[in-house]
Amino acid sequence: MSTDTTSGRDEATKRYVIVGGVAGGMSTATRLRRLDENAEITVIERSGYVSFANCGLPYYVGGVIEQRSALLLQTPESLAARFGITVLVNTEVVSVNTTAREVTTRSTMSDETSTLAYDELVLSPGARPITPQLPGIERALALRDVEDTDAMAAAVAGAQTAVVIGGGFIGVEVAENLVHRGMQVSLVEATAQVMAPLDPEMATPVHQRLRDCGVDLRLGVSVTAIGDQVVNLSDGSTLPGEVVVAAIGVRPDTTLARMAGLTIGPRGGIAVDEKMTTSDPHVHAIGDAVEKVDGLSHETTLVPLANTANRQGRVLADILSGLPGADRPVLGTAIVGVFGLQVASTGWNEKRLVAAGRPYRALHTHPASHAGYYPGAAQLALKLLVDPETDEILGAQGIGDDGVDKRIDVIATAIAGGLTASDLADLELAYAPAFGSAKDPVNMLGYVDQNTAQGITDTVQWHEVGELMEGGVHLIDVRTPAEVANGAIPGAINIPVDELRDRLDELPEGDLVVSCAVGIRGHIAARMLTQKGRNAKNLDGGYRTWSAGMASRQNAAS
Amino acid sequence: MSTDTTSGRDEATKRYVIVGGVAGGMSTATRLRRLDENAEITVIERSGYVSFANCGLPYYVGGVIEQRSALLLQTPESLAARFGITVLVNTEVVSVNTTAREVTTRSTMSDETSTLAYDELVLSPGARPITPQLPGIERALALRDVEDTDAMAAAVAGAQTAVVIGGGFIGVEVAENLVHRGMQVSLVEATAQVMAPLDPEMATPVHQRLRDCGVDLRLGVSVTAIGDQVVNLSDGSTLPGEVVVAAIGVRPDTTLARMAGLTIGPRGGIAVDEKMTTSDPHVHAIGDAVEKVDGLSHETTLVPLANTANRQGRVLADILSGLPGADRPVLGTAIVGVFGLQVASTGWNEKRLVAAGRPYRALHTHPASHAGYYPGAAQLALKLLVDPETDEILGAQGIGDDGVDKRIDVIATAIAGGLTASDLADLELAYAPAFGSAKDPVNMLGYVDQNTAQGITDTVQWHEVGELMEGGVHLIDVRTPAEVANGAIPGAINIPVDELRDRLDELPEGDLVVSCAVGIRGHIAARMLTQKGRNAKNLDGGYRTWSAGMASRQNAAS
Repeated sequence: MSTDTTSGRDEATKRYVIVGGVAGGMSTATRLRRLDENAEITVIERSGYVSFANCGLPYYVGGVIEQRSALLLQTPESLAARFGITVLVNTEVVSVNTTAREVTTRSTMSDETSTLAYDELVLSPGARPITPQLPGIERALALRDVEDTDAMAAAVAGAQTAVVIGGGFIGVEVAENLVHRGMQVSLVEATAQVMAPLDPEMATPVHQRLRDCGVDLRLGVSVTAIGDQVVNLSDGSTLPGEVVVAAIGVRPDTTLARMAGLTIGPRGGIAVDEKMTTSDPHVHAIGDAVEKVDGLSHETTLVPLANTANRQGRVLADILSGLPGADRPVLGTAIVGVFGLQVASTGWNEKRLVAAGRPYRALHTHPASHAGYYPGAAQLALKLLVDPETDEILGAQGIGDDGVDKRIDVIATAIAGGLTASDLADLELAYAPAFGSAKDPVNMLGYVDQNTAQGITDTVQWHEVGELMEGGVHLIDVRTPAEVANGAIPGAINIPVDELRDRLDELPEGDLVVSCAVGIRGHIAARMLTQKGRNAKNLDGGYRTWSAGMASRQNAAS
Repeated sequence: MSTDTTSGRDEATKRYVIVGGVAGGMSTATRLRRLDENAEITVIERSGYVSFANCGLPYYVGGVIEQRSALLLQTPESLAARFGITVLVNTEVVSVNTTAREVTTRSTMSDETSTLAYDELVLSPGARPITPQLPGIERALALRDVEDTDAMAAAVAGAQTAVVIGGGFIGVEVAENLVHRGMQVSLVEATAQVMAPLDPEMATPVHQRLRDCGVDLRLGVSVTAIGDQVVNLSDGSTLPGEVVVAAIGVRPDTTLARMAGLTIGPRGGIAVDEKMTTSDPHVHAIGDAVEKVDGLSHETTLVPLANTANRQGRVLADILSGLPGADRPVLGTAIVGVFGLQVASTGWNEKRLVAAGRPYRALHTHPASHAGYYPGAAQLALKLLVDPETDEILGAQGIGDDGVDKRIDVIATAIAGGLTASDLADLELAYAPAFGSAKDPVNMLGYVDQNTAQGITDTVQWHEVGELMEGGVHLIDVRTPAEVANGAIPGAINIPVDELRDRLDELPEGDLVVSCAVGIRGHIAARMLTQKGRNAKNLDGGYRTWSAGMASRQNAAS
């Protein structure tokens, strides 16, 4: 080993400077230490806290997490003791000299600057909340770090009314938590639905749950101004809002990367290769700030998720230490709880497939979370999107009070393993009546896919029914009269499936669509009718999917 | 189409006779109808009920499922109306003539016999409870069908004490349910542990939970006689038992198959090929009665699980109808709830790998079910078994109060998709603090596997510690003194991980094993020491796994 005689530093000692001390950045720092006991590792964090529980912040505001200390997973002191990592909080990087390999830092407390040399620089600055250009926006609170959380907790302490702008993950979490505090909460979303990863018919139960739990949900309207104690909307209405929260989305924080002259990608994130290296070979970047490779299209994408950031942080430490490792294309599996409703998705949704012009088939099911005869079963809504040529799983969405996380995780794993939609039929999943069904909901998706792929039952989608009926196709509702009395598709002819064999002569001439509650009896009826020589297709997902879809159109129209 | 003029029957109409009207048999019958509207489908069931919820029976006895009608998912009448299936209950097959393709049936109510012709015969008779040869065994109850359930419900109604013989799935479910009814329950298991799919150290928390919930658990003793109101054990003790339940296991019901002269396989089940066909080309068999192909060894195996039976039933209907389909090798994924503790497994356990002489490496972790800072997180115990050459996942076990089902299902899906243990690190699983961690427990298993596979940290297993220490290896416990005070491995030297860098000179000479609570701090310490030139291995799973393992040895010794 050679020694730098001017500094006394052992040149074999690697100097890592990591900007950003949450999720990805801290994963890199601690993994680097485990792999290299001798490295000099410095973490620079703009806020006053590192390694805090950023996904827990809304729940502290809401009082679900009671102790503020629970949010602080590590401190500079604990990281020094366990990992020998130097952590500089309340410190920002004001310039990067990639030629000299130095960063200049400034303390936001003392304003002092200093210079820090690096061999490898890691940028993990995360994403910044998007701030809409609105009169009064300076009154709106955001939720990114512990300081934001303290500010929001202080603001809501004496307040009774709140307006949350934006129906994404953070927006719905904050809305729920403010309701949990006893506040009167309005949630304003400019598009026709909350939770953009969902397709519109899948978002309907989320809207219902938000309203059932007291949220004043305003869809398809935008905020025009934030006034004193109120928020004005584009439809002319005014909402009471002592507290206003802006949660309309995030964009990669590229301030530092631009300052350093690094390449920014087409979607506005830091461009990195599969080794997480930027356009400068000694500068690396991870997490919400970087562009990723989409698992389906293999194009660049932005996926601001904590699990992806953590994964990239660890992989980068491996790469920097000479271990094998590379970033992988992302699916973007995600979940959020909405007043007890689990809302999860993986891969692409139908909106995105349509926009990309990519062929697909959609399957909707409404299974029970576990055996219906065992107490506590919840009805789920699942949607699977499949490549009609290859049977590849393109994406999945799930909604329900229990067991949605499990099914989406299983499907995400199936995608990772290259299993086809039909292969889901054969998965051996753990069954006891409290946990699933002998034919698990995921198996059932495989069955429905097989039936569709093999042409055993052709299906129509909820949004195709109207046009088909206008074109002269007859809709046969095979539910019981009691079910029909609680709501039905206008113009449908009701013949219960159990009577269908005996009432075939009552069917009108021409092409038929059969429908039931969720698609199971419709499948039975369609098989019966097809073998009787009729052209009969099944309404995918049944009346439940159709009515959710129609409700979503009303939001879009309003 | 030709017509059989003697019977008036259309020869193109297939006649299916299915023996056994639960799980596999009923799956075959209903799928056959959906695929062939014209077939004659007859289901013959020995008991008075078809399509009943056999996995729910213990929970009706316990009162968790309150309505008896909830167990009866279908009736002969409902199956006739919806599927046009003829169901004969209280009917047994007394002979099979495979040459004439006829079965002779007998009504157990009227004793009348009749003959039924078939084109294809499907046997789905299930498994029979094993009845131990014991004095007084005639007093022991079993739990296989609705009649058994009624008998057990009647027997426990006025009783206060019960002895359950056998600590498998049914035994622990029955024990829990009898406790739920307020009874004083003893559970007697002849081996050293309940739940044979678990390795001994994984069974320890199950034993603890059973005892904590009031079950008088007797391990390593057998029943010698069942007396009046009591049960006598091999250790000379006597247990109060107004009610006695025998649940020591099941064996394939091959009565009918033997009668028909079909080939029985080496494990005592009906031998079938991958098309579910027996040694007679027109006789097919599915479910608990047949031998399956093991997913790892590709040898024959018995796997009496409802999900496998249902899957085989559907696949067989496809095959009989000319659709593509074949049985698949089985993993045997299974789960049971034990007083709120989820106990699940997939693939092989360590006991079986050792017995087969198959190389493996074992990993133990104790992650939180979801982010520790969010209320309600439970500590899990997970175990992964991996092929050291190929990194193939050989099996997994999980225990804990929440989220075990999800992790085992994800791992079972990973196995099905051919993912390696290292690949688990990169799975994109749905994360929000209520549902998981940014690094999910399954991801963490992948990390631990990578560290082990790449030689980043060598580990020792709980059962290797004693011999290593006797051989002069020093054990360094890197937990805090407060943790050590609550229990430690005898002879360990305590140096907390956060002080280790400064106290290296206190370490004894020679080889070291480091240990902590669950293996995470031990990994950090082992990395540190290895890079300081010491030979240091980490105790896999930490003190928690070690102490569970040692407790299991006490059971074996008792």
